[in-house]
Amino acid sequence: MSIVMYDLAGADPELRFSPYCWRIRFALAHKGLPVETVPWRFTETDKLAFSGQGKVPVIRDGDRVVSDSWAIAEYLEDRYDGPALFGGALGKAHARFVNAWADSVLTGGIGRLIVRDILDIIDPAHRDYFRTSREQRFGRRLEDVQVGREEGVAEFRNSLQAVRLVLRSQPWLGGTAPSYADFIVAGTLMWPRCASRFAVLADDDPIEAWFQRVRGLFGGLGEGARRA
Amino acid sequence: MSIVMYDLAGADPELRFSPYCWRIRFALAHKGLPVETVPWRFTETDKLAFSGQGKVPVIRDGDRVVSDSWAIAEYLEDRYDGPALFGGALGKAHARFVNAWADSVLTGGIGRLIVRDILDIIDPAHRDYFRTSREQRFGRRLEDVQVGREEGVAEFRNSLQAVRLVLRSQPWLGGTAPSYADFIVAGTLMWPRCASRFAVLADDDPIEAWFQRVRGLFGGLGEGARRA
Repeated sequence: MSIVMYDLAGADPELRFSPYCWRIRFALAHKGLPVETVPWRFTETDKLAFSGQGKVPVIRDGDRVVSDSWAIAEYLEDRYDGPALFGGALGKAHARFVNAWADSVLTGGIGRLIVRDILDIIDPAHRDYFRTSREQRFGRRLEDVQVGREEGVAEFRNSLQAVRLVLRSQPWLGGTAPSYADFIVAGTLMWPRCASRFAVLADDDPIEAWFQRVRGLFGGLGEGARRA
Repeated sequence: MSIVMYDLAGADPELRFSPYCWRIRFALAHKGLPVETVPWRFTETDKLAFSGQGKVPVIRDGDRVVSDSWAIAEYLEDRYDGPALFGGALGKAHARFVNAWADSVLTGGIGRLIVRDILDIIDPAHRDYFRTSREQRFGRRLEDVQVGREEGVAEFRNSLQAVRLVLRSQPWLGGTAPSYADFIVAGTLMWPRCASRFAVLADDDPIEAWFQRVRGLFGGLGEGARRA
């Protein structure tokens, strides 16, 4: 029986755009595990009640229910053989830094560039919730958050310098092969790729070349994803 | 025979302040390896000619000479047993991200806060070199780089959020025990600690509590270090 994953979807159920769900989509594919995804929308917390919390990703693997992308990645690594996501205790401990960096610098930076665009792709029934909760988080109107993004994107791109430096020394963040570190960063970059038409990376950025390689993995799982 | 390490020193030969040398001092101590340090000053490139390049840290271990902090850490891990610095291929691959982040965000941010202070601790004979090379790098007078640092330090502290997030989940960047990831970040923080009296961290920052614990390791190697 396939693992079931609850996956954030837009009004179009094929449009999947959560940076945390994408990390797990890649991780499942890396482990060679088939998955059946269930489209889920903001505020459908009742549908996740079985998990004891209200956010995606959530996976159901037989009797086991696991939520939170990091906890799911840990679960998959512990439960299943196949290519490593973390590669031991230190590999996991060090990947936490990549995860923490992505959860602060990367998601924060991307959010400021595309948060208004997300309104256009989500189901109209959830737009009020989305606007209210995100305007509270940013402290201003969503339209104002994105103002000047054509100039602001330069600072965002600068903030990714650590990724560029790593990719000068090795082809993947995981070294000679992709690891969960790659899926953390690439999964987060799938968010703007799918939810917006704004290019957060320059075409000639080495990060874009690497991101393209990640998207090409697993039969083009990322490359073929539905976009806004 | 002890490993010999060429270590950046101030006018006071006991004042050691290189972020890259400190990473290796901690790494050597972690491996339980005795070291004999040789104080080295900017522009004494002739003294490093044997290494084929002109920067510290350089170590001589019997017949082996290794330069560049990352290459030295790799060498120590491959050559010596004892507590792990990297913990396997993925542990090392993921630590590269921490290293790259420290070499961009951390050293860049600290440099902008304390670069002028360094002039006061280095040998007068090397001050012209230091001023000229650093003013070229920053594109302005050293005094101007530090202007407004009492306010600018808030942005620097914000840029360390990934470290804080990791330390919420585990006591060390290496997980349950220190690893080279801890020595990368703590070694870099030894630079402002030893070269300046300006506090780059707030006293109540969880990063400061962790940094204090790293300084207390190895008989207080970091805690007891000579300061400006």
